[in-house]
Amino acid sequence: MTTITGFAVHDVRFPTAAAGDGSDSINRGDYSATYVELTTAEGVTGTGFTFTNGQGNEITCACVRALAPQVVGRTVAELTAEPPRALTAHPQLRWLGPEKGALHMATGALINAVWDLRAKLAGRPMWELLATLPTDELLSCVDFRHIDDALTPAEAAAILDKGRVGLEDRLALLRSDGFPSYTTSVGWLGYPDDKVRELTRTAYAEGWRAVKMKVGGPIEDDVRRAGIIRSEIGPDALLMMDANQIWGVDEAVANMARLAPFDPYWIEEPTHPDDVLGHARIQQAVAPIRVATGEVAANRVIFKQLLQAGAIGVMQVDACRVAGIPEVLAELLLAAKFGVPVCPHAGGVGLCELVQHLAIFDYLRVGTSLDGRMVEYVDHLHEHFADPVRTRDGRYLVPDRPGYSSDMLAASIAEFSFPDGPAWS
Amino acid sequence: MTTITGFAVHDVRFPTAAAGDGSDSINRGDYSATYVELTTAEGVTGTGFTFTNGQGNEITCACVRALAPQVVGRTVAELTAEPPRALTAHPQLRWLGPEKGALHMATGALINAVWDLRAKLAGRPMWELLATLPTDELLSCVDFRHIDDALTPAEAAAILDKGRVGLEDRLALLRSDGFPSYTTSVGWLGYPDDKVRELTRTAYAEGWRAVKMKVGGPIEDDVRRAGIIRSEIGPDALLMMDANQIWGVDEAVANMARLAPFDPYWIEEPTHPDDVLGHARIQQAVAPIRVATGEVAANRVIFKQLLQAGAIGVMQVDACRVAGIPEVLAELLLAAKFGVPVCPHAGGVGLCELVQHLAIFDYLRVGTSLDGRMVEYVDHLHEHFADPVRTRDGRYLVPDRPGYSSDMLAASIAEFSFPDGPAWS
Repeated sequence: MTTITGFAVHDVRFPTAAAGDGSDSINRGDYSATYVELTTAEGVTGTGFTFTNGQGNEITCACVRALAPQVVGRTVAELTAEPPRALTAHPQLRWLGPEKGALHMATGALINAVWDLRAKLAGRPMWELLATLPTDELLSCVDFRHIDDALTPAEAAAILDKGRVGLEDRLALLRSDGFPSYTTSVGWLGYPDDKVRELTRTAYAEGWRAVKMKVGGPIEDDVRRAGIIRSEIGPDALLMMDANQIWGVDEAVANMARLAPFDPYWIEEPTHPDDVLGHARIQQAVAPIRVATGEVAANRVIFKQLLQAGAIGVMQVDACRVAGIPEVLAELLLAAKFGVPVCPHAGGVGLCELVQHLAIFDYLRVGTSLDGRMVEYVDHLHEHFADPVRTRDGRYLVPDRPGYSSDMLAASIAEFSFPDGPAWS
Repeated sequence: MTTITGFAVHDVRFPTAAAGDGSDSINRGDYSATYVELTTAEGVTGTGFTFTNGQGNEITCACVRALAPQVVGRTVAELTAEPPRALTAHPQLRWLGPEKGALHMATGALINAVWDLRAKLAGRPMWELLATLPTDELLSCVDFRHIDDALTPAEAAAILDKGRVGLEDRLALLRSDGFPSYTTSVGWLGYPDDKVRELTRTAYAEGWRAVKMKVGGPIEDDVRRAGIIRSEIGPDALLMMDANQIWGVDEAVANMARLAPFDPYWIEEPTHPDDVLGHARIQQAVAPIRVATGEVAANRVIFKQLLQAGAIGVMQVDACRVAGIPEVLAELLLAAKFGVPVCPHAGGVGLCELVQHLAIFDYLRVGTSLDGRMVEYVDHLHEHFADPVRTRDGRYLVPDRPGYSSDMLAASIAEFSFPDGPAWS
């Protein structure tokens, strides 16, 4: 019965904007983390974070401070045995959402820290903790309110029960081959053509057979860059495109007609992330190219609708924009119900570290297939984590340390604390 | 060429939670305002606010501080002549939305303060400023990105041009009769049955022929309270019901079958505000009862879809959850395009003061009809405003002071400032 005795929150920012890393049609960010530590009398510390883009990280930190009284003083067992409504349905704070924006992102940081504690106390990596929990324990944390018209608790239980069959075989395959992934490091909008060509060539040589480029600049530039990348990776490798929400619905359809000759595997975030009906129209128009979205989908209610409307061919969950493990679990179950593959969003700060656990758990217990599944990989900032991702030939290796791989190095926190760390002062 | 030279933001909270005022199935609030003042060299001060529910008001204040550099140092003329993308599409802050939650609410407070300045400088009440602006000036501030698949700039211009016809006649009617409204003060969930009966009787005696009750408690309680109110107002007055998002989709359909015998005019917020498809299913099931929603609809993209999906029979805009006047204008135009009446959300702190301007402008220049139009009225906290709403026989009287009626009394700000004002310390 471990009780959470206190919390700390750190505003950690990495000065990435100047180099053009992470730049796209919408964002020009200093990759940042609202980093939470939950302390216990036992001396074990749970960590969690939400990723932000620089400015505004002080806001998500303020949200953590507003929400933390809902977890401090409670036990890990009780907090992980119920939907996190003490945070998501707080009678005053909920007004700032509901279940969206800065407050919901801070909720994700806190709830993930609680679950990190649970995994560390159990001595298991997060994927293993989740994959081996009894079905009723897993489901006790899921908030079915507002999604039970699409997925009932009984349907969810059936998915998780069925997921036990063959689990050991799937795990053996992962331990031998790793989890498929793709790289986003070749085609940021901030990079000149020569750098794009060189990075693509290097990635291909390293074994990557799926790469993602940013689109959403002037369409002629997008077409030219798509040509460069396709010529480097050949006809068989996968080329994903990511518009980061810049287009209107009609504009997305028109631009994808221009980009279709380069055989994109998916178009990611073609329009505003709240536009379920718009994504559905785009998906109809661009098929067989898949529409992918989710990294800024506000919550499980948006994902539910994207699936109900047939608006996506690929579902991209984010580990810390929604209310942590319990809401991601709801999203994975919804995707399984509708038969849509999940390819988690990563990159940023520490997102690769988190989502590897989600993808492995999904394969082991929920989706139970590797067909169409890939985890995003971006080669930034892993050196700041105590248990960084490891890849081989374009595949993630299975992590084995207890917890959610979310511990940031104390030296990195100190160096990049904003505004007083040495990196900023 | 008035330049904004500085800003101040005040965390103002009224201790309303203890009395049960404003309590419903989801909220138990201390009605609060994130109150913004924009200063100018001319000595005119623009004011704007966003309404919150108590805790978390410090977060929207922090958001105002993060966004204010985008307006300070710029002129009122240039800020009101373009979509507010400097705030809504900021390359770093946008990640905390986009266009939703605490950051978007703070955007509304700031942008409304800019427009309040414009109206004060013009010496006109907001409704009059808007109603008399040339069509192209009005549209220059509207962000059509992500809504132009439903409403093109040309269609919007045609609506506003047509709205000039008969404008003077409509204004004469308003000056003589006032604007229709309804009262929400009779049926908060925190009130006992006797108080509900007495308040309903009093409201009816005062001339109200449209009242709203909260539902979403145990259904037997909702049914009993609906019976009390309907028996007091008779068969001809309108009874609206408001579930404040508590129900699932199937649950909403089932509960409205229980409440239908009391002849509700609309069911407001039957489920999660992000659930466009859910609202559409409920609207199909409960017709001819209208589905109404919008007070926490995150942005114009959500409203666009609610209209595209035929999910609502009444559209409720909020003055300060979205990005102020420019985004509300987009929403009014969308409603006019789809032929759905707008009944603005009010109550809270100062919302009645704001939305009277929006409703009057909508009638004069956009929707151009009073059919099915009513402004919400709640008799709380008007005494804290310099230009409070005035009603007569259940109708709003036309405000005449220059500006957006958003100026809060200095004594009220001082008294209720959190946490150091006398009301809190």
